[in-house]
Amino acid sequence: MIIVPESEIAGLVTTEDAFAAIEACFAAMARGEAYNFPVIREALGEGRQYGFKSGLDRAGGVMGVKSGGYFPGNAGRGIPNHQSTVLLFDPESGRPTALVGGNLLTALRTAAASAISIDRLARTDAKVLGMVGAGHQAQFQLRAAAKVRDFDKVVAWNLHPEMLPKLGEVAAEIGLPFEAVPLERMTEADVIITITSSPKASLLDAHVGPGTHLACMGTDTKGKQEVDPAILARARVFTDEVAQSVTLGEAQHAIANGLIKAEDITPIGAVIEGLAEGRRSADEITLFDGTGVGLQDLAVASAAVRLAGQKGVAAEVEV
Amino acid sequence: MIIVPESEIAGLVTTEDAFAAIEACFAAMARGEAYNFPVIREALGEGRQYGFKSGLDRAGGVMGVKSGGYFPGNAGRGIPNHQSTVLLFDPESGRPTALVGGNLLTALRTAAASAISIDRLARTDAKVLGMVGAGHQAQFQLRAAAKVRDFDKVVAWNLHPEMLPKLGEVAAEIGLPFEAVPLERMTEADVIITITSSPKASLLDAHVGPGTHLACMGTDTKGKQEVDPAILARARVFTDEVAQSVTLGEAQHAIANGLIKAEDITPIGAVIEGLAEGRRSADEITLFDGTGVGLQDLAVASAAVRLAGQKGVAAEVEV
Repeated sequence: MIIVPESEIAGLVTTEDAFAAIEACFAAMARGEAYNFPVIREALGEGRQYGFKSGLDRAGGVMGVKSGGYFPGNAGRGIPNHQSTVLLFDPESGRPTALVGGNLLTALRTAAASAISIDRLARTDAKVLGMVGAGHQAQFQLRAAAKVRDFDKVVAWNLHPEMLPKLGEVAAEIGLPFEAVPLERMTEADVIITITSSPKASLLDAHVGPGTHLACMGTDTKGKQEVDPAILARARVFTDEVAQSVTLGEAQHAIANGLIKAEDITPIGAVIEGLAEGRRSADEITLFDGTGVGLQDLAVASAAVRLAGQKGVAAEVEV
Repeated sequence: MIIVPESEIAGLVTTEDAFAAIEACFAAMARGEAYNFPVIREALGEGRQYGFKSGLDRAGGVMGVKSGGYFPGNAGRGIPNHQSTVLLFDPESGRPTALVGGNLLTALRTAAASAISIDRLARTDAKVLGMVGAGHQAQFQLRAAAKVRDFDKVVAWNLHPEMLPKLGEVAAEIGLPFEAVPLERMTEADVIITITSSPKASLLDAHVGPGTHLACMGTDTKGKQEVDPAILARARVFTDEVAQSVTLGEAQHAIANGLIKAEDITPIGAVIEGLAEGRRSADEITLFDGTGVGLQDLAVASAAVRLAGQKGVAAEVEV
């Protein structure tokens, strides 16, 4: 089998590679050729979380499991708190084919999902990108979003404003003016990405102007919340997987409040496949609830293995 | 991280090593220091099955996942139909620590569970070992059982009698007389191991004499059945994990028929830890329902890693 260590991923998988892999994955889900297995998520005590996301993509010939978790004690040891590893198998024989470091891939696949939603749902003339959240993942989100629209400005807010300059550096690198703003000024944004781990809504209904596309990427578990459920009631809502969206995604709150129903939520794969309409007018609000599914992890890991083979950096071991 | 390939396992992990690892695992479960996460099991079509068993053993410092499945097309390709791989993690940091070939380990841990039940529950003067089933796994069962009791004979039955001579060779190797018998003659056995993948009971109530210990090792999914539920009604029932025993183990049928209740089933770990009684009299029938839990796979894989380190055959790779 092939080993692609964490240290090789940055040199192998580009934002574009991740975009292509995740778009194909969402499309295969919409065609019914790919599906996620049930998610295992366990609290280990002392704030540690661990779990497994797995699935099968018949179209891509991909089966596997991402083992991942959050270990708050890691930072003190100089290693990332988030730890992910992807194990891939041949779906025909069940033989393990590759083990791939999954930390950077997780950021890339999450940013790719957000960028796909912007590509498919934001107004083509979107000029101002709003960022709610300025952590490590926000940098990947900004880079991926800038590939799919010709933005001329970034406005950003973060609960801890001292983290904003770091995101500003990324904007500068891409050549985009960057301004720290209060949440009220998110009305200026044509696209808003929320990427926080907030337990309650930061972005309120009054902060969102008509015609905006929102990519809500931070809520992946029960009890997290980034935006006012009233925004979902006003918006057309899209997601990666409806089952996750209504239970542990951003939509969980609007569903619980009876503001929207599961049938109101469209899988983004259906838009990609031409089975559902994307944006219908310049005025409507579109919202993508990015919950993060196992198939995304398998898709980018599979791309990493392919690229490692092409570049001759794949280490082969017997297992 | 460490790689221990499938080809190294036979030279590393003995029947005794597996016994010690599984006994410690069952004991940790009984003390509440180890628990299995929910099992994922998916039908992939064309008879293929795939799934993940995972868990955490705080006492052993072991966390991980066994990916395993059944791929009926493999035999034609010259590779085993059953495919298993174990991925271990440091429960403190979530970093992957080892990837271990899991095919032979699965047979060893299943045989160890059975042998532990015989060690703890069979009469100490047991002389005749009955084998119901004569496939690949039966050979491991016979070898492990012979380590814990001083048998002087093996009587064996298999649905396909032409497979019996192969099991007879293993008996001969251990120095035990071996006789193919009809099921009716299992009354002669003091210990009976059932290790089949039968969809309905082979061993009937009339085939089991007083004082017998049964280790029912073949039923690990809904719809499988090896023995008459009346035997469970007559026996004291033990298991690896009660939750699995009542839903997908041999006890599922006696539970469904209302012949026994979940409270009637004792975890074998409780016997090991002295929290529950084992055999109470020479006449009672004891029955161990071996369903196979993820923690067993992690325990033997962890032992394989330790032994590979000691023997200097552990391959280290960066991930």
